[in-house]
Amino acid sequence: MIPFITTNEGKFEEFRTFLEPLGLQLSMSDREYPEVQADSLEDVVLYGASVLSRELDEFVIEDSGFFIDPIPGFPGVYSKHIHGSIGLDGVLKLVGTDRRAHFEACILYYDGTSHVFKGEVTGTVATERRGTGGFGYDPIFIPDGHDRTFAEMTPAEKNELSHRGRALESMAGFLRSRDRP
Amino acid sequence: MIPFITTNEGKFEEFRTFLEPLGLQLSMSDREYPEVQADSLEDVVLYGASVLSRELDEFVIEDSGFFIDPIPGFPGVYSKHIHGSIGLDGVLKLVGTDRRAHFEACILYYDGTSHVFKGEVTGTVATERRGTGGFGYDPIFIPDGHDRTFAEMTPAEKNELSHRGRALESMAGFLRSRDRP
Repeated sequence: MIPFITTNEGKFEEFRTFLEPLGLQLSMSDREYPEVQADSLEDVVLYGASVLSRELDEFVIEDSGFFIDPIPGFPGVYSKHIHGSIGLDGVLKLVGTDRRAHFEACILYYDGTSHVFKGEVTGTVATERRGTGGFGYDPIFIPDGHDRTFAEMTPAEKNELSHRGRALESMAGFLRSRDRP
Repeated sequence: MIPFITTNEGKFEEFRTFLEPLGLQLSMSDREYPEVQADSLEDVVLYGASVLSRELDEFVIEDSGFFIDPIPGFPGVYSKHIHGSIGLDGVLKLVGTDRRAHFEACILYYDGTSHVFKGEVTGTVATERRGTGGFGYDPIFIPDGHDRTFAEMTPAEKNELSHRGRALESMAGFLRSRDRP
């Protein structure tokens, strides 16, 4: 069993469902690790891994964020904090005419080496919050090629498109190629 | 010589001028240390010190931030990042009728033990940026009892009131009491 270090049960279930068929048995761990202030999600998970690898031989961690493209790095690495402070209404006040945005996910799998897998989904910021599903920035994000926000989609529809799903697929590709003799 | 770990020369000069008469000889060091995502400046410097203390016997670090009181934790620990992303114009859009705000500084002096010294200055957010002095949030902060922003004051006037000056005074009190037999 490889510890997936997260306090988010929904995320743990998504990972477990995806990775178990590929032979990676995950357990949920609420062990704590430092999340640094950094310019990218990759820097956050790499630093976390440098601390965790002193104590663990194998683990999985993940970080994700929402990025408003014309405002570099915002809210980005600080998505959770910004959501909790100024909220979606505050974020909407800051978006101008260029409404492009994306979600990014970054998974790090450590097995003696840090392997990083990324996924993203591009779209636009809605002019107001819409929908009751999902969490975080889902009510204000409309993925490209769609006219509903993530919060207006079923979990299955959202997972099909999601940055986290894409990062998991990238990880799956790695696991498959590794297991091939 | 005790390393003050900062890349800000102005800050280094302010510390040196203040602390040298108290017998603390500082050298400027650009050594890097991790700044974590945290709820308070104190948590940021305590974590930094936990890493630095593996390699150094004595050092000084400092973190400071701007806090808009009705928006908990904003921009706070992330002041520098928010200033660089949404800027002062973005911040002004988020302030409502309650315009109270404060600056906070947190100095950590490590000599085998972490000693933390805090200072703050309370005031209000101006309705627009004013003045060309200072840096960061100075053009939009009016300290209580004044009608000019920090950026409209001379450096001497600002230092007299500043959060950093108050944290340095608290540290000076500690150094004086420690040196007393």
